[in-house]
Amino acid sequence: MPKLPVIVGGTIAIDNVITPQAEAKDLLGGSASYAALAASYFTRPVHLVGIIGHDYPQHHIDMLEAHGVTLDGVERSEGESFTWSGEYHDNMNDRTTHRVGLNVLESWQVKVPAAISTTPIVVLANMSPDNQLQMLAGSTASPRFVIADTMDLWINIANERLHDVLKELDLFVINEGEAREFTGTANLILAGKRLLAKGPRNVIIKLGEFGAMLFTGDSENWEVSPQTFFRSAAFPLHEVADPTGAGDTFLGALAGYLASLGKTDFSFDDIRQAVVKGSILASFTCEEFSTRKLQSLTHEDIATREQLFKVLTDW
Amino acid sequence: MPKLPVIVGGTIAIDNVITPQAEAKDLLGGSASYAALAASYFTRPVHLVGIIGHDYPQHHIDMLEAHGVTLDGVERSEGESFTWSGEYHDNMNDRTTHRVGLNVLESWQVKVPAAISTTPIVVLANMSPDNQLQMLAGSTASPRFVIADTMDLWINIANERLHDVLKELDLFVINEGEAREFTGTANLILAGKRLLAKGPRNVIIKLGEFGAMLFTGDSENWEVSPQTFFRSAAFPLHEVADPTGAGDTFLGALAGYLASLGKTDFSFDDIRQAVVKGSILASFTCEEFSTRKLQSLTHEDIATREQLFKVLTDW
Repeated sequence: MPKLPVIVGGTIAIDNVITPQAEAKDLLGGSASYAALAASYFTRPVHLVGIIGHDYPQHHIDMLEAHGVTLDGVERSEGESFTWSGEYHDNMNDRTTHRVGLNVLESWQVKVPAAISTTPIVVLANMSPDNQLQMLAGSTASPRFVIADTMDLWINIANERLHDVLKELDLFVINEGEAREFTGTANLILAGKRLLAKGPRNVIIKLGEFGAMLFTGDSENWEVSPQTFFRSAAFPLHEVADPTGAGDTFLGALAGYLASLGKTDFSFDDIRQAVVKGSILASFTCEEFSTRKLQSLTHEDIATREQLFKVLTDW
Repeated sequence: MPKLPVIVGGTIAIDNVITPQAEAKDLLGGSASYAALAASYFTRPVHLVGIIGHDYPQHHIDMLEAHGVTLDGVERSEGESFTWSGEYHDNMNDRTTHRVGLNVLESWQVKVPAAISTTPIVVLANMSPDNQLQMLAGSTASPRFVIADTMDLWINIANERLHDVLKELDLFVINEGEAREFTGTANLILAGKRLLAKGPRNVIIKLGEFGAMLFTGDSENWEVSPQTFFRSAAFPLHEVADPTGAGDTFLGALAGYLASLGKTDFSFDDIRQAVVKGSILASFTCEEFSTRKLQSLTHEDIATREQLFKVLTDW
């Protein structure tokens, strides 16, 4: 079947990042930027939905377009772009946010242009649940497959709206710490089961350097089985230069791979494979600041790493 | 080739454990108890080396003997047995030690009886590096394969002696937090490489609920490759009743499996398989207090779980 396009809504940011080794400014950032770029390695076009200010660096836009990402859904505002400045500490897991400039995001109402509103694979990358619901309302494909991510901020300040989003999802992606917080249990298997009970047909808990867990099926009487659970490792990296965007990359690669299958009803095995693609692409993102590594990949780079990953985890 | 016996030295304890759900007293505990019992599912006899006091419960001894564990190497002292009392908190990872009674351990000098001194698979379960070196001095098999574990306490108060142990090892097993502390890096791939540089020919970093990493080969110019690195997941558990001894179980099962191969020179693939056996047995230990689950397994239980584990992690 011919590949399907993907629509990705979320934030587009200007990032300033400090790590124990180096510092970089005016970087391409934002959940949707990473996700769209990652998806572009599996299917094109990828329709980006977001908002940028008058000050957004043109070369970032150019790079995205060169990867088959369309920007018709990106609103250009007279305000200043959303910006994030943060610092990673020695272990590269803990980070401190120095400054968040919401700017154009503050009053953003997501609008999906008619020309891309029927895109069947819908990615709600990390943004406010209100924005995610607006994007869903503007996405009119039927059938469709909806995938969403979130973050701790929304669990804390928009919990009810986030639950509204969850009811609409085919696949919900969340990281480990957030999953524990959101479900009130430290046991991740139980957390996955409880997330399924909130509505999504599939749930992925991202474990950072430890991989990911996929849960699927009816939450009532859910049990670990070959039809309901998959455990993927992460590709081993001896150096992490900048983990920003790894989770967004995972999300985008996963969605792009699913879209490349040319359908909207996926088997459990399709989603297993998608988790692996997500893990592979996320590992590249960690190797350089921002999207520098991600944007320069070849299909051979990806295939080679996937093959190595297979051997490193097989027994 | 006929299976080889294993010799396991370490602590034999009386444990008192509190979890958020329950409490249990006078439990079989200690690094060597778990390791010997786990090894017994793969090869017999398993020669236990340790020390107990006059107050040690006879039914624990009986249970070990019923599993093919010999106690000729266990010294019976007139003092009181080593005892540990601790409490697990909500997340079942953090624990508080309420009381450690070293008792008979305090002045223990490991003696290996002549009849078992030539056992070729030697396990130095967690005990002081001094005790580990004493056990090594009493183990005269040639060729032999020596596997050791440790804990944060020895990294802190017996660092130099621990380094002496490391130079003698074929395989060193350590948990994630200790590996980071011991090597001064948060990156586990780098930590593994640095541990190899301390002497052991193989290193395993245990990741608890996230599995394990195996490193092998010359530490100079070491790189991740199919010949030098293996990443195993952990079997998913929706409820952890008591994680005490899971790491010791991992160690013992791994050693028992290797011994069952009837040789002392192992291929990388042999050790990969051993890591999987360790993960499987450790998952059982977590399911009930102390060795209650571990001691009641059948070979079919183990085979069934291994098969399920394979399917849950394959792609």
